[in-house]
Amino acid sequence: MSLLDETVAAIPPLDVAAMDAARERLDQLTKPRGSLGRLEDLVVQLAGVRGAAMPSIERRAIVVMAADHGVAARGVSAYPSEVTGQMVANFLSGGAAISALGRQLGARLVVVDMGVATAIPPRDDLLSRRLGPGTADLSAGPAMTERQALAGIEAGIEIAASLAADGVELIVPGEMGIGNSTAAAAIVAVLTGRPAAEVTGRGTGLADPELARKIALIDAAIAGHRLGAGDPIAVLATVGGFEIAGIVGLLLGSGAARVAVLLDGFIVGAAALVAVALAPALGPHLNAGHRSAEPGHRVVLDALGLRPILELDLRLGEGSGAAVALGVVDATVRLYREMATFEEAAVSGRATETGNAR
Amino acid sequence: MSLLDETVAAIPPLDVAAMDAARERLDQLTKPRGSLGRLEDLVVQLAGVRGAAMPSIERRAIVVMAADHGVAARGVSAYPSEVTGQMVANFLSGGAAISALGRQLGARLVVVDMGVATAIPPRDDLLSRRLGPGTADLSAGPAMTERQALAGIEAGIEIAASLAADGVELIVPGEMGIGNSTAAAAIVAVLTGRPAAEVTGRGTGLADPELARKIALIDAAIAGHRLGAGDPIAVLATVGGFEIAGIVGLLLGSGAARVAVLLDGFIVGAAALVAVALAPALGPHLNAGHRSAEPGHRVVLDALGLRPILELDLRLGEGSGAAVALGVVDATVRLYREMATFEEAAVSGRATETGNAR
Repeated sequence: MSLLDETVAAIPPLDVAAMDAARERLDQLTKPRGSLGRLEDLVVQLAGVRGAAMPSIERRAIVVMAADHGVAARGVSAYPSEVTGQMVANFLSGGAAISALGRQLGARLVVVDMGVATAIPPRDDLLSRRLGPGTADLSAGPAMTERQALAGIEAGIEIAASLAADGVELIVPGEMGIGNSTAAAAIVAVLTGRPAAEVTGRGTGLADPELARKIALIDAAIAGHRLGAGDPIAVLATVGGFEIAGIVGLLLGSGAARVAVLLDGFIVGAAALVAVALAPALGPHLNAGHRSAEPGHRVVLDALGLRPILELDLRLGEGSGAAVALGVVDATVRLYREMATFEEAAVSGRATETGNAR
Repeated sequence: MSLLDETVAAIPPLDVAAMDAARERLDQLTKPRGSLGRLEDLVVQLAGVRGAAMPSIERRAIVVMAADHGVAARGVSAYPSEVTGQMVANFLSGGAAISALGRQLGARLVVVDMGVATAIPPRDDLLSRRLGPGTADLSAGPAMTERQALAGIEAGIEIAASLAADGVELIVPGEMGIGNSTAAAAIVAVLTGRPAAEVTGRGTGLADPELARKIALIDAAIAGHRLGAGDPIAVLATVGGFEIAGIVGLLLGSGAARVAVLLDGFIVGAAALVAVALAPALGPHLNAGHRSAEPGHRVVLDALGLRPILELDLRLGEGSGAAVALGVVDATVRLYREMATFEEAAVSGRATETGNAR
């Protein structure tokens, strides 16, 4: 049995007993019943994922996977490929958005080179899991081999398992890769059966003519490769990216280890679609940190059945939207763990009971 | 000139130079231009409010104003009046939602007795600005005198001024008062010209028959008092609440002192409508932390021209929704202050400029 197969088989259902206990506690806290709205659902889901009535997400890691894309040479991004490696250096020196957010959240920032085009000198704080110097141009042929796709997934699984073994309780997957919104749009189009026009956006900031070219390129690539939704590994290999493969594994490994996950934007969402296609049991483990400005992200979240915590038109990537949302999750867990119950605080219950007596 | 008039006159316009400087810095940070979405607008607004290109909101206070409402005796709330005082004790002993959030955010929690019905023994950590043992029943006559309303507003102004003098940079106003969603709905109905049915909700959890009674009571009170939108002090006095008057003052005082404000839910929103009716210059100073589940809150935010940061169906009050949103604002300010510029990080700019050259 391969590591992938083992991991898929190991993803448990949510822990129903922990979820029931969380619901019961929520109704005893000094607040009108249900008045924390969607935050109450979030607590219950975290209890189910972590298998604990009082879940902790204090030990957290942001894992940013970076890689380059051959298709970037086709003018599908507003920025040149060299930016991928430059941003990796920026992550490590602490100047990127995700670096600042990592400090804000007390999160460990793990940066992974899954295949950046420009060579990065080895350094202790950079994990190297390179599958090559960037993918091939997906508009001219497959982006990678299926063996590479599987190796990328397994690298992600191993990273999640290693973080879980270190005691990490929540992972925010992030990505960096000039051109990767093209790869993500192609994956989403195939797995959801939508035309590229519905799931393709401006990425880092394309103008109208370039956007039209990007859409045409994706439609042509999908038609040329004769891709269907039935084989997610083939989809990932043919139109995906090394960092996307890594995130697929990260999600699967997190699910198997009961590590909570907060999804970021469109690219991470595309990886989640692949992961859930491989392991439907993963679906209930996922939470969406935000919905990005990228139009295809709405399609992704609908397909995953997820409502995002934030909708602030972010489109930065790196895991940044999920990291901002983690502040909301932290407040939620704090409320749940620290609020007094009616009994503890000697606060009176409802004057009028309406069928759901406390 | 009264303290109220002085304060209204002292509210400055937003600082345009600081806002321009903030926009310029945002475009130099290592991210695609505009990719922080609505968080970029938030930074620019905070710069304008604080009058500083690099605004700080580190020193913050949550000010929870509490008072009782005579109308609570008419069965408009699912909880009895005694809960107001019990929850004040809960705030102070650290067991309430807003207590936990205050710890999460490193915020000073200021609890103000504006007129709780059940006597609270004096204690150092409770500000007493009592206008009486709760308002009169607004469905039988005016809730308070105009003199009480003005005294409540001035108490709020003084608290804001004193916090500003202490160096507080951001205030989250919160409230506690069984029955206050009835008072808030009446204020909102009059000031926006909507029927009570459009702006009245279940508060802490009314069932259908009680909700219908609450709506009828509000419509009858407004008709009986012959209230119009032209005199906000009269509206506040006739159908408002002591804690709502205090929050009106808190908002005006914050505006005059360039202290940033994050609005909470429906009750604070009703206070904001009164405050902006008194001082239109206050409008641009306000930010909405969240939109609550209370249906009238959408009407309030539309009237104020505000888009909320969060929409998570919270309906707990106390300032809790704004406090949860403050985590997002903190992340935003952290990003803005700590991210590297393209030049600092030696990251390449756009490959294709599209008219808005960096």
